[in-house]
Amino acid sequence: MYSFDFHKRVRYAETDQMGYLYYGNYAYYYEIGRVEMMRSLGLSYQKMEKQLGIMMPVMHLEVRYLRPAFYDDLITIRTTLRKMPTDTIVFHMELFNEAGKLLNGGSVKLCFVDMKTNKRAQIPDTLHKALLPYFQEKK
Amino acid sequence: MYSFDFHKRVRYAETDQMGYLYYGNYAYYYEIGRVEMMRSLGLSYQKMEKQLGIMMPVMHLEVRYLRPAFYDDLITIRTTLRKMPTDTIVFHMELFNEAGKLLNGGSVKLCFVDMKTNKRAQIPDTLHKALLPYFQEKK
Amino acid sequence: MYSFDFHKRVRYAETDQMGYLYYGNYAYYYEIGRVEMMRSLGLSYQKMEKQLGIMMPVMHLEVRYLRPAFYDDLITIRTTLRKMPTDTIVFHMELFNEAGKLLNGGSVKLCFVDMKTNKRAQIPDTLHKALLPYFQEKK
Amino acid sequence: MYSFDFHKRVRYAETDQMGYLYYGNYAYYYEIGRVEMMRSLGLSYQKMEKQLGIMMPVMHLEVRYLRPAFYDDLITIRTTLRKMPTDTIVFHMELFNEAGKLLNGGSVKLCFVDMKTNKRAQIPDTLHKALLPYFQEKK
Repeated sequence: MYSFDFHKRVRYAETDQMGYLYYGNYAYYYEIGRVEMMRSLGLSYQKMEKQLGIMMPVMHLEVRYLRPAFYDDLITIRTTLRKMPTDTIVFHMELFNEAGKLLNGGSVKLCFVDMKTNKRAQIPDTLHKALLPYFQEKK
Repeated sequence: MYSFDFHKRVRYAETDQMGYLYYGNYAYYYEIGRVEMMRSLGLSYQKMEKQLGIMMPVMHLEVRYLRPAFYDDLITIRTTLRKMPTDTIVFHMELFNEAGKLLNGGSVKLCFVDMKTNKRAQIPDTLHKALLPYFQEKK
Repeated sequence: MYSFDFHKRVRYAETDQMGYLYYGNYAYYYEIGRVEMMRSLGLSYQKMEKQLGIMMPVMHLEVRYLRPAFYDDLITIRTTLRKMPTDTIVFHMELFNEAGKLLNGGSVKLCFVDMKTNKRAQIPDTLHKALLPYFQEKK
Repeated sequence: MYSFDFHKRVRYAETDQMGYLYYGNYAYYYEIGRVEMMRSLGLSYQKMEKQLGIMMPVMHLEVRYLRPAFYDDLITIRTTLRKMPTDTIVFHMELFNEAGKLLNGGSVKLCFVDMKTNKRAQIPDTLHKALLPYFQEKK
C-alpha cells in the first residue's frame, strides 16, 4: 500500500451558490492528489507523457459526497494505492477538512496508453520500480 | 421512465492537452442534462430553491469513460429517470457524439434538503406530479 | 461591422458563493461568443486549426463588470467586429440578461499563428472573404 | 507599495488542446494571488465576508498574454498594490515561470460592498491598518 497527503485550499472559483465546493470540482482535486502522489515517488506525469510517450486516460470515476467543503477550507487530499497497478491503476481518494473530518471519498481508475500506437500498455517500468518497496510480499 | 435529450458543444475551455474533453467536466454536462430535463417537465431548479426552499445536494456520482469527446463535438446529453424518486433521485446519464456513438455513461444521485431546517425532505409535490404520468403502473 | 448574438444559460458550476456568475467565467462566455460568430459566417475554428494549420492565441483580454449575472439567467452574448482584422482580430463583447440590461462588456484581441512555423500570420483568406461584405467602403 | 509572491502549479484541468494554460483560467490565478496576499497581511477574505459583512465584487479585469504557461509549470503569482486603496482596490498581477520569465501581466479592480445595505463602502479599517506601514509618506 502507498498513501500520500497533499493540501489544497478551496477557492472562490470552485464554490457554487450553495456556498459549497461544486460537486464537479472534486475530479480536479483527485487529479491534483494522484499527480502529487506520483511526484512524491520521484515521477512526473509530465515526463511520462513527454519522455515515455505514455498517457493515462481515465476509465472510471466514483465520488461519494459525505459533507460539503466550504470556501477557504484547507483540504487534505489523501491518495492511496491499495494494489500494485498492472495495465490499469486505481487511486483511492479521501478528502478531509482541517478538523480531520472525512468530507468525501472516491476512486479513479486509469489505464496506460502508448501514444505512438494509441494502444493499451502495461504499467511503465519506472513507476513499477518506484512502487515495488510498498507492495513487497510479507514472508 | 422519463428521458430527455439536450445538446451541448464541447468548448476549448473544456478540453485538455490530450485534446479530450477533460474528465472532470462531465459532471458539468450531467448538471446541464438534469436541469434541462427538469425544465422539460415545466420545473425550474432555480424556483425549487427560491420558491420551495428545497435544494438538491449531490450524494453520489459515477462516470464511465468509453470514448473521448473532442473539441467542437456537438454532444447529446441523454438524462433518464428509471424510477419515481422518493427521498432521493437518481439521474442516469448517457453522452453521444454526432455519429450516435455512446461516449460516456454514468449516474448522479441527489437528495432533497429543506433549506429552512437543513434536514432531508421527500420529493416536492410539483416534481412528483409532473413525473406521475411517466411512472403509472401498467394494468 | 459584423455582429452576432448567441444565447447561453448560467449554470450552477459557473456561480460562486456570492450567487454571481464567477468573474473568471466571462472569458468562457467570450470564447463561446467569438466561436459562434465565426460559425455564423460559415467558418469553424476547429477547421481553421485542423485544415489551415492556423491557431489563434489570445493576446489581450479586458472585462468590465457592470451588473452581476445570476444562476439560470439566459444570457445574450453579443460579439462584434468593428474593423476588418489584419494580423490581429479584436472581438468586442457585450452580455445582456433577459430584461435586455447590459451586464458586462469587454474585448478580446487574438493573433493568427501558423502552426507549422509557429510564426505570426495574416488573417486567413476564407475569413477575410467571409467578412468582406460587412466592411465594404461606402461610396 | 506591497508585493507578495505565491506559487501554483498548472494542472491538467487548466490546459487546453493547444497545450496552454487556457486564457480564461488566469482570472483564477489572479484570485489566488490576491487572496494569499491578503492572508500574508494577516487578513482573510473569508472573515471579511463573514465577520465584517464586506464583500468585494470585481469591477474590471485586464489580462496581457505574453508567453504561454504549460502543464505542470510551477508559476509564481506576484501580486502588487501600488497605491493605498480607498473605495476601490487595484491588484497588479505578474506571472512568472520557473526560469523567471514573465508570462503574463494584468490588473483587477474591485470595490467594497456592505452586504447588509448592498451599498458601496470604504476600505475596511483592518485592511487599511495592515497596509499602512507599506504606504507611509517618505519625509
